[in-house]
Amino acid sequence: MGDLVKVKTKELEEFTKNVFLRLGMNEEDAWVSADVLVRADRRGIESHGVARLQRYVDDIKRGVIKIDAEIKTIVETPVSLVIDGGGGVGQVIGSKTMKRCIEKAKTNFICLAAIRNSNHYGIAGYYTLMALKENMIGLSFTNSAPLVVPTFGKDAVLGTNPISVGVPAGEERPFLLDMATSTVPRGKVEVYARKGDSMPKTWATDEKGMATTEAQRVLDNLAARKGGGLLPVGGEGMLNAGHKGYGLAALVDILCGVFSNGAVGPDVYGKKGQPSEVAHFLGAVNPAAFVGLGAIQEKMDYFIRMMKHSQKAEDQCCIYVAGEVEYLAEEANAESLGLLKKVFDNLNTIGKEFNLTLKGELG
Amino acid sequence: MGDLVKVKTKELEEFTKNVFLRLGMNEEDAWVSADVLVRADRRGIESHGVARLQRYVDDIKRGVIKIDAEIKTIVETPVSLVIDGGGGVGQVIGSKTMKRCIEKAKTNFICLAAIRNSNHYGIAGYYTLMALKENMIGLSFTNSAPLVVPTFGKDAVLGTNPISVGVPAGEERPFLLDMATSTVPRGKVEVYARKGDSMPKTWATDEKGMATTEAQRVLDNLAARKGGGLLPVGGEGMLNAGHKGYGLAALVDILCGVFSNGAVGPDVYGKKGQPSEVAHFLGAVNPAAFVGLGAIQEKMDYFIRMMKHSQKAEDQCCIYVAGEVEYLAEEANAESLGLLKKVFDNLNTIGKEFNLTLKGELG
Repeated sequence: MGDLVKVKTKELEEFTKNVFLRLGMNEEDAWVSADVLVRADRRGIESHGVARLQRYVDDIKRGVIKIDAEIKTIVETPVSLVIDGGGGVGQVIGSKTMKRCIEKAKTNFICLAAIRNSNHYGIAGYYTLMALKENMIGLSFTNSAPLVVPTFGKDAVLGTNPISVGVPAGEERPFLLDMATSTVPRGKVEVYARKGDSMPKTWATDEKGMATTEAQRVLDNLAARKGGGLLPVGGEGMLNAGHKGYGLAALVDILCGVFSNGAVGPDVYGKKGQPSEVAHFLGAVNPAAFVGLGAIQEKMDYFIRMMKHSQKAEDQCCIYVAGEVEYLAEEANAESLGLLKKVFDNLNTIGKEFNLTLKGELG
Repeated sequence: MGDLVKVKTKELEEFTKNVFLRLGMNEEDAWVSADVLVRADRRGIESHGVARLQRYVDDIKRGVIKIDAEIKTIVETPVSLVIDGGGGVGQVIGSKTMKRCIEKAKTNFICLAAIRNSNHYGIAGYYTLMALKENMIGLSFTNSAPLVVPTFGKDAVLGTNPISVGVPAGEERPFLLDMATSTVPRGKVEVYARKGDSMPKTWATDEKGMATTEAQRVLDNLAARKGGGLLPVGGEGMLNAGHKGYGLAALVDILCGVFSNGAVGPDVYGKKGQPSEVAHFLGAVNPAAFVGLGAIQEKMDYFIRMMKHSQKAEDQCCIYVAGEVEYLAEEANAESLGLLKKVFDNLNTIGKEFNLTLKGELG
C-alpha cells in the first residue's frame, strides 16, 4: 500500500477548505466541500477522501463543476422538494438540500428530495450523518458514472449507485448503511490490477459480458468502452442473485434521475461536451412520524446488541453492524490520520499553486 | 417437478376465498386473503401461492392468526401511521393499511406506515401493486422468521426480509422490485436437497457458520436450530459483499420492527407459546411530490428501454427489468394456471372439510 504520512485532522480540513476558497468558493461552501472529503478519510473510506481533491480542482477549473451555480427549487410540497443544482458543487447542493429536508421534517415529519444537474457529492453517508446529528432518520442515494452491467447485459449502463440509510440508536452507535450496489468499487479492481492478483468471479465482466478474474482487462475495457464492467451485488446471472443487486442499482437510478426528471443510466456522463448531470435523492424522517425517538433508540439498542451478541461463525471474533467499522475509524482518526505518501504529495502539489502547505510526518 | 394440474384462475380465487369464508372471515377479508395467494401463483411465485393455504388454515384454526383481531392505530400524522395488527391476518392488515396510505398520499403526497403484531402477509409485491394501480409509487417491506445469518455470524437471527418498491411507467410495464435479502429462499434449498444437488457456496452455511454446498445438512440444522442458515445476498464474509445483503436485511428489520416498536430478529417467532409477531413497513408516494406522474412515466419508459435495448452478454437474448418476468407470467396465467398435482390434491383435501371442490385438468 505504500508509506503513510501522518497529518493532523484539523490541519487537513483547513488545508482542503483553503484550496476550495482559493478556487473562488465562499466560506460556507468551501467548508462543506472540504468536510465531505475529510470526513471520508476520517471514516476510513480513503477512496472518497482527499485523494479525490485533484479531480474536484480540475473539474472546477474546467467549469465542469460551477462554483457559482444557482440552485433552483423546481417543486416544493410540505414533504418534498425537487431541486435543480445548475451543474454546481455536489457537496454544496447535497448539504443545502439535506438541511432543508431536516428543517421541513421537524414540522412536517417527512421530507424527501430529488435533485438533478448536480455533480459527484462524495460519500452518500455524509448526508445521512447530517440527519443523525439531528436525531432524525436519514436517506441518501446517488446515481453515478456508468460502470455496472445489468444482469445478462454486456455494457456498463448503470452507476455503482450507493444506498445510505441512517437510524439513530441510544447507547449504541447509530446504524449507518452506506453501500454501493456493485459488488466492489472500481478502486478495488485497480488494487488487484496493480498486484496482478486474480479477482473473485463475482466482481466484474469482460468485453463479452462474461465473468472474469482479470482485473487489468476489465479496466482496459472500461477505459476503451469496449464492453464489460463491474457486476452488481450477487455477481453474474441469477444463480447467486446478481439480479437483486441489479434491481437495487436500477432503483437508485429511478429515485435520483427519474423522480427529479434528470439524467439516468449512461446520460449521467452528460451529453458530448456537456458537464456531467449527476442526480441524488435525499430524505429526513422524524422519529415522531412513528413511535418516537425514545422508543426507536431503545429498540435499536436491543436490536444491535441482539445481533452483535449472537453466536459467531468459526474463527470469527465479531459481528459488526452497518457503519460500526467506520465509526471506529472516525474515533481513531479524530486527532490525526494517515494519508498515502502519494496522496500527501499530490495535496502539496495542488497547494503549491495557492501558496498552501500541508504538514505531515512520515512513518 | 411433478405433474401439473390446470385450473381456471377465477375458480381458484373463488375456491380459496370460500375456504377463508368457511373459516369465519367476512367477505372482504376472505377476498383479499385469497387474492394475495392466487396473485402469487398468477405471477409465477408459486412458493408464496396457494401451496401455503394449509399453513394459513392451520394457523387460523389454532388461533395463531386471529381472524377477528382488532386493528388499532397507535400513531397517526398527516404522512404516517403506526398500526398494531392485534395478531390478525397479515393480508387483511397489510391491504387495509396500504389503502389508508394511498388515500393519505392523495392529499398529503406521502404516507409511510409501520405495522406490528401481524402475521405472514404473502408476497411483499402485492401491496406495491396496490399503489401502482392508483398510479402511485409503492413501498413494501416485512420481517419474517429467522433463517438468515449475519456476516461472520453462526446463527440465523434475521428473516429473509424482502424489499419491494414499485414505480409506474407509461407504455412499458411498471418497475416492480420484490426481492428477499437472502441469496435464495429456503424453498430453493429444499429443491436442491430433494435432488441431492450441490448448492452454490453463496446460498447457506453449516452448523459452524461456514459456507456449505450440502442442502440437506442446512435444512436439518435449521430444523434442529443447531446453527447455520441462509446467507444474505453476496454470500459468506465480505469478499463477495455478503455484508451488503446483511445490511439490507437488518435495514428491513429496523423499518418494520423498530419503527413500529414491534418484534425484531428472532423475536418475530414470538415468545414461547405466543403467536408470531411479524412487522411490516408500507408506503405510498404521490408522483406529484416530485416531477409529476406524466414526467415520471415518460422518463421510466426511457430508462427501461435504455436498459432493455443495451448490448447483451454472450449467449443471452434479453435483459429484464424488475417485475417483468412476473408480469409476463401474470399475462399468461390470466385465464388458467398450472398447479403441482401435490398442491392441487392438498387444496381438495382442505376443501373436503368445507364441502368445497376445486376442478382441474391433468396435463
